[in-house]
Amino acid sequence: MKVIIDLCVIPLGVGLSVSKYVAACHKIISDAGLKSELHAYGTNIEGEWDAVFDVVKKCHEKIHAMGAPRITTTIKAGTRTDRDQTMADKVESVKEKL
Amino acid sequence: MKVIIDLCVIPLGVGLSVSKYVAACHKIISDAGLKSELHAYGTNIEGEWDAVFDVVKKCHEKIHAMGAPRITTTIKAGTRTDRDQTMADKVESVKEKL
Amino acid sequence: MKVIIDLCVIPLGVGLSVSKYVAACHKIISDAGLKSELHAYGTNIEGEWDAVFDVVKKCHEKIHAMGAPRITTTIKAGTRTDRDQTMADKVESVKEKL
Amino acid sequence: MKVIIDLCVIPLGVGLSVSKYVAACHKIISDAGLKSELHAYGTNIEGEWDAVFDVVKKCHEKIHAMGAPRITTTIKAGTRTDRDQTMADKVESVKEKL
Repeated sequence: MKVIIDLCVIPLGVGLSVSKYVAACHKIISDAGLKSELHAYGTNIEGEWDAVFDVVKKCHEKIHAMGAPRITTTIKAGTRTDRDQTMADKVESVKEKL
Repeated sequence: MKVIIDLCVIPLGVGLSVSKYVAACHKIISDAGLKSELHAYGTNIEGEWDAVFDVVKKCHEKIHAMGAPRITTTIKAGTRTDRDQTMADKVESVKEKL
Repeated sequence: MKVIIDLCVIPLGVGLSVSKYVAACHKIISDAGLKSELHAYGTNIEGEWDAVFDVVKKCHEKIHAMGAPRITTTIKAGTRTDRDQTMADKVESVKEKL
Repeated sequence: MKVIIDLCVIPLGVGLSVSKYVAACHKIISDAGLKSELHAYGTNIEGEWDAVFDVVKKCHEKIHAMGAPRITTTIKAGTRTDRDQTMADKVESVKEKL
């Protein structure tokens, strides 16, 4: 089962800047060989369900290891069985209607 | 790693009523032996990370099997390493300040 | 236009405990005369769109005034034109299928 | 109060393709003169709080007018008082740490 997610990980108890934690997650995603796109309020990732959610778990483990005692994350996750659809397809599908 | 999530699964392409799909997820959560609380815009679940996210995956698989060709899900997921905290603790912590 | 929302406000830069900020929001919601339900990962609110989102804005203003320099909030918002549906209806609709 | 949001509007009861509704929202955002960025799982918008949330309301009204009887939307909303930060700043801040 393929999935596209939007991942937004917020470490608490480490001050106001979250970018170094987001960057650490980005490395985990890349190391997993998953396609991703960073945007201003999260990161989109596409891949097989288990691989994608394994990355989400590793991001939590890494950010705790970096010193954040609490994390709250928002995830949107989309699956479909009618056809394959990539992140690029989704954006393209809107753009051709603009 | 313990996690508390808020899970909101939305099947697309099956009309307006989503309650039977939410009920099917509720059964999956119960069968997994996880503690959960239904609310008006989702279901909170607490447990070990792998057990909780296994349930999320099974919900997607089940809802597709029930005939929904597309699903979009919103998840909030919280972990903390400073102390144990249950769903009941979180609600209690706010209520004592009201 | 009636709306039901799920509101989860996270102040950053103020340590690990967020319950006093959630309690402050709860007072704002009550003062606005809106019906709400606290759960373990947010607060559900129902009412007219403008009244509900005015409360969301006031929560941000209040939490900044309490000293939080940064806030990240997750909102789910549902509207429907086919029929009236309250928060209680939504929960009931699932429970009768369990 | 400036805000950056991530907006993901899901019409229910209108089949599987949501791109034409997203495109209609995009026009509303543009007409409001707000800066936005489309991504694979939503649209980021920045601006003054009232202008941004007025657009969110107009999107719901428009999508109902287009024939969707039910809508469920996920919004992430960030405000900060310590400094100005644009959507571009947020992406840049992560990229320089990669």
